[in-house]
Amino acid sequence: MRSSASTQTRANLPKGQRTREGILRAAVDLASVEGLEGLTIGRLADELKMSKSGLFAHFGSKEDLQLATVKTARQIFVDYVVHPALAESAGMPRLWSLCDRWLSHVERKVFAGGCFFTAASFEFDSRPGAVREAIVEAMQAWLNTLTRAVEDAKKAGHIKADINAAQFVLEIYSMAVGAHWALQLLDQKKAISTARETILARISSLATRRCPPLKIAG
Amino acid sequence: MRSSASTQTRANLPKGQRTREGILRAAVDLASVEGLEGLTIGRLADELKMSKSGLFAHFGSKEDLQLATVKTARQIFVDYVVHPALAESAGMPRLWSLCDRWLSHVERKVFAGGCFFTAASFEFDSRPGAVREAIVEAMQAWLNTLTRAVEDAKKAGHIKADINAAQFVLEIYSMAVGAHWALQLLDQKKAISTARETILARISSLATRRCPPLKIAG
Repeated sequence: MRSSASTQTRANLPKGQRTREGILRAAVDLASVEGLEGLTIGRLADELKMSKSGLFAHFGSKEDLQLATVKTARQIFVDYVVHPALAESAGMPRLWSLCDRWLSHVERKVFAGGCFFTAASFEFDSRPGAVREAIVEAMQAWLNTLTRAVEDAKKAGHIKADINAAQFVLEIYSMAVGAHWALQLLDQKKAISTARETILARISSLATRRCPPLKIAG
Repeated sequence: MRSSASTQTRANLPKGQRTREGILRAAVDLASVEGLEGLTIGRLADELKMSKSGLFAHFGSKEDLQLATVKTARQIFVDYVVHPALAESAGMPRLWSLCDRWLSHVERKVFAGGCFFTAASFEFDSRPGAVREAIVEAMQAWLNTLTRAVEDAKKAGHIKADINAAQFVLEIYSMAVGAHWALQLLDQKKAISTARETILARISSLATRRCPPLKIAG
């Protein structure tokens, strides 16, 4: 994002005005709480106490702003969840780290309103267009990352070879979405830690004796 | 709903104009596709080709309309999913029937846009107010119905006695929500039938030998 921020900033912005990157960080948090559809240039200008024309210098339209916001949220998610997990050894340790950090990013409010992409998914599933496509692409990339981790776990002999990876990933994914729902709607404070235990138990139930011990990062 | 429709219709409506009940059925479908927040009296009047004043005779405000829509959706869900399942014998057959019919109501598009309450949950989780409370109440009632079914299954000796019912229900619930997500966002046509198999396998894995055979209603 850093390099595109400098090339895409068009206007001579007043000194001290927030950079594109800072604006987008605020946009991500606002959208995670109020929804991506409500993220208009006017609403964001209010929130940042900036002029609408100042924001129009960065984003030509509401859709541009929404697309840039999805891209930023995706980068934040990759930096917080995916990259550190890729440092774990391929197979079950990496799969578990992906799950563990994913739940952590909700607990630690990496996005102010919980899981940005879960909220955006349900908001845009019936709204065709470029924003929906960007969300689908992000979610598909995430499912692919998890699926690759399961396939690696099979190759490493950490998990039974006859597991249907796509189905198993949807099962894990569902636990995380359900926990997010219980936390956000029903205020079940322990929903995320319960999901962590449920996912760990489910993963462990499929593990072979060659699987290294899995631990909660804490 | 039938009796309240007749008592709450205030104005002398033109002959042939849709009844409150019919209006609310359309409102439920519209909200399931476009979201409950976008359900304004103006939008619904457009959809039904009615005058706004005609609709105002039924609903004094957008919030009244939203609350009546949630109530109608709840009644439709109870009629389609809960009541027929309660006819099954207490314990696992009833638990499984609740799950099976719940997935069916998404497959059969009982609500035009998929699961009304899943969509509404994610839309309103950060919007405090009477509508959010009505959604929470409906979802809590549904979780309680499932939890009671699990408790009955324990009492009947159909399922291991040490199962944490609330946690198990959240797990089942999560599978259904995840499937709904995969269908609505990623267009995975088999998501619901896969979830049905996953839930049946999970329930069966906890069943005792006293549990009657469970079948997919089809």
